[in-house]
Amino acid sequence: MRYFSALLLAGLLAGGPAARAQIAPAGPKTDSLNIRRIFDEALLRGQCYENLRYLTGTIGGRLSGSPQAQLAVEWGQRTMEKAGFDKVYLQEVMVPHWVRGPKERGEIIGNKGKSVPVAVCALGNSVGTSGKLRAGVVEVHSLDELKKLPDAAVKGKFVFFNRPFDDALIEPGQAYGAAGDQRRSGPAEAGRRGAVGALVRSLTSARDDNPHTGTTQYAAGAPQVPGAALSTLAADRLSLLLKADPSLKFELEMGCQMLPDVKSYNVVGEIRGSKFPQEIITVGGHLDSWDLAQGAHDDGTGVTQSMEALRLLHAAGLKPERTVRAVLFMNEENGTRGGNEYARLAQANKETHLAAIESDGGGFTPRGFAMQGSSEVQRKIAAWAPLLRPYHAADIMPGHAGTDIEPLEAAVHPKALIGYDCDSQRYFDIHHTTADTFDKVNRRELELGAGSMAALIYLLAKYSL
Amino acid sequence: MRYFSALLLAGLLAGGPAARAQIAPAGPKTDSLNIRRIFDEALLRGQCYENLRYLTGTIGGRLSGSPQAQLAVEWGQRTMEKAGFDKVYLQEVMVPHWVRGPKERGEIIGNKGKSVPVAVCALGNSVGTSGKLRAGVVEVHSLDELKKLPDAAVKGKFVFFNRPFDDALIEPGQAYGAAGDQRRSGPAEAGRRGAVGALVRSLTSARDDNPHTGTTQYAAGAPQVPGAALSTLAADRLSLLLKADPSLKFELEMGCQMLPDVKSYNVVGEIRGSKFPQEIITVGGHLDSWDLAQGAHDDGTGVTQSMEALRLLHAAGLKPERTVRAVLFMNEENGTRGGNEYARLAQANKETHLAAIESDGGGFTPRGFAMQGSSEVQRKIAAWAPLLRPYHAADIMPGHAGTDIEPLEAAVHPKALIGYDCDSQRYFDIHHTTADTFDKVNRRELELGAGSMAALIYLLAKYSL
Repeated sequence: MRYFSALLLAGLLAGGPAARAQIAPAGPKTDSLNIRRIFDEALLRGQCYENLRYLTGTIGGRLSGSPQAQLAVEWGQRTMEKAGFDKVYLQEVMVPHWVRGPKERGEIIGNKGKSVPVAVCALGNSVGTSGKLRAGVVEVHSLDELKKLPDAAVKGKFVFFNRPFDDALIEPGQAYGAAGDQRRSGPAEAGRRGAVGALVRSLTSARDDNPHTGTTQYAAGAPQVPGAALSTLAADRLSLLLKADPSLKFELEMGCQMLPDVKSYNVVGEIRGSKFPQEIITVGGHLDSWDLAQGAHDDGTGVTQSMEALRLLHAAGLKPERTVRAVLFMNEENGTRGGNEYARLAQANKETHLAAIESDGGGFTPRGFAMQGSSEVQRKIAAWAPLLRPYHAADIMPGHAGTDIEPLEAAVHPKALIGYDCDSQRYFDIHHTTADTFDKVNRRELELGAGSMAALIYLLAKYSL
Repeated sequence: MRYFSALLLAGLLAGGPAARAQIAPAGPKTDSLNIRRIFDEALLRGQCYENLRYLTGTIGGRLSGSPQAQLAVEWGQRTMEKAGFDKVYLQEVMVPHWVRGPKERGEIIGNKGKSVPVAVCALGNSVGTSGKLRAGVVEVHSLDELKKLPDAAVKGKFVFFNRPFDDALIEPGQAYGAAGDQRRSGPAEAGRRGAVGALVRSLTSARDDNPHTGTTQYAAGAPQVPGAALSTLAADRLSLLLKADPSLKFELEMGCQMLPDVKSYNVVGEIRGSKFPQEIITVGGHLDSWDLAQGAHDDGTGVTQSMEALRLLHAAGLKPERTVRAVLFMNEENGTRGGNEYARLAQANKETHLAAIESDGGGFTPRGFAMQGSSEVQRKIAAWAPLLRPYHAADIMPGHAGTDIEPLEAAVHPKALIGYDCDSQRYFDIHHTTADTFDKVNRRELELGAGSMAALIYLLAKYSL
């Protein structure tokens, strides 16, 4: 019991939000009441769930450069204008325009003529196959393993990257990070070694037939070969068949291609600070999504929660002392052009940014916030935990904040970059697949997240850092 | 910052399980490693998900007294025998045998002859309608409101209890508790006042057409009238139509009935304690479910997690010093006969019970444990929080432990009754409906819960209380 102070324990064991709020500096009682008002508005009169229904159901998948992405920009602008924010505007940005083409086809072809069609999809930014591409397959489990293979083992073949998620990791995001280099760099490395293409096991713990797309990057000047994701069941099957018949062939057909850049936009909505309007707090998600599905959890939830966070402050009558901006970033998935442009403009306009929050880990039940910033700043934010504990959003710890807000760091040095952190066990089951749809989002989980984000913004806008 | 010790903050901000484990007395380093072994086994070689697939998919709904309940008993016994526990046995218990009969029918009949069929189901234990039952409707929002109505307003009518969930409550379980008296006592009170039946708004925040069953209780000697649940959409519709036409009629047809009691069983599996075999730790869930669906989250998850918790200790080579029992309780839903019998036998056999754990709040992502017990005991268990924090199961607070283990309190005075606490936002969307199916359960969430329960048992078996 050494390190548990008696007071902490008393708070812990007495139970109930009121009792637990005594554990640490809770700020004035009004903060607790105002945050409760934010959550009342979120849970009783919330709008983010219906907004998400429209974005995912009526507009649907909205890859950068697509007509749906443009519809989403117009919808975002219209929705924030209707919400009565002080200012709503667009930031023009050129974005990549990659198109998938017809549904991809993959087939394992045994030497005895037996062929097994398997579920595949092109990785984002991949080149196509120019018709049917048939070749042998060499299986590896890492980029390192590929490096060690002799040229003859790779040349003219598909490199099949088959390292699975490490299920022992408690955070699926860590498993994603640990397996992700295969998708991001696999095709580039395979091309460099003379392979004709790369087949990548989908980045998920789920065992199903849903291939997971996601961005892959070619190296400048190096050969570009097609990269495809295999569903985990397809990967398991290919691996098994390869063991029995190492000389089997794989046939891939993908019509994807990269077209010239297209004009698009970040959408920005602003509530002007009543006392310190020049100090800015950004909250955002990304408006683009992969084309395969509706982009519900990635990142329709972040987009609608960010707009909702501002609306909650507004509707609860909590006019912030500092300026709060909801930013719907364009092109997180395959370029981060929107995030870079937002940071460039912030710097060019000599703006002062206090903090930025991003929600891009799904719209599941809240856990808290992941932070980048000095220890002092992290300590200040952690001191607000008791105010967030009644909402199960009090887990405040260091971690990655978000891809779209990351460029602000170098550009304008905000005191904190903060990622909304929610339960993540289900996220990678559906991430970047046709299954990332509205029905996977729970209304209350979404609303509790928006309330948590609004509560943090309320505190940041009132107390600074 | 007054109440936050520097050490606590250092632990909080340094991040990572190891760093965070310094916050409070973590017990020896071996505990941390042993718990990690438990979770490795759960996540890498877990069996509870496949067990749940069989219980829900092959056996299905298993209301007390049904043939499926008997199949579930045999399955539970067989599964624990296969798992290699020291002892597996049945405890005979007589249970109620209520049957639903043909699918229920409900219809709103306007005075101009227009009729609207609506989604209804009988409440568990309800009497049937003996053919079609047609009557006027009086809407109330509480038992109190019914009390204040004059007899003439109630007599010969359906009492329509339409108090919704309070969505502002953060814990849906609290909303369930606050609205639940309408279902439990509504039909009894309606009958006492001369009504012909009771229509009860389904106990959920969801707006859909799924009626939620659940037990209702008649008072001894008072008139028994039929009680039906309306889906929330049906309740909204009936309320709206009543406003326009207060003299409309409702027609209900239910063929449910209570048959004579049937012999059934609790299933008990045991690992004998190596040092203190006479001291018992119970972990359990309930084997029966409502008949409408598969009883996946209620309580297939609790049953399979409880068996898995013992298997995890066994497979991780952590022979407990105290006896650990997995108990699959029969008849939680409409009688608690199994829970009562387990407690009666414990008392009759003069057993010493250290603690009992129940998982009956769904198989969602872990949060921690809810406890009943002295402050001293609660303090002891709370001191283990740092060991559970890496698994997000460190939220240890007072609360209701579980219906099946509750009777142990008076019978053998265990030092703690403990409820496994998991995220609950989705639970009442599906609770007691046709939608409580296997596909709503996430494999990793289920396994993390089993791991959390096994970790707590490991600590209880090693350190006592």
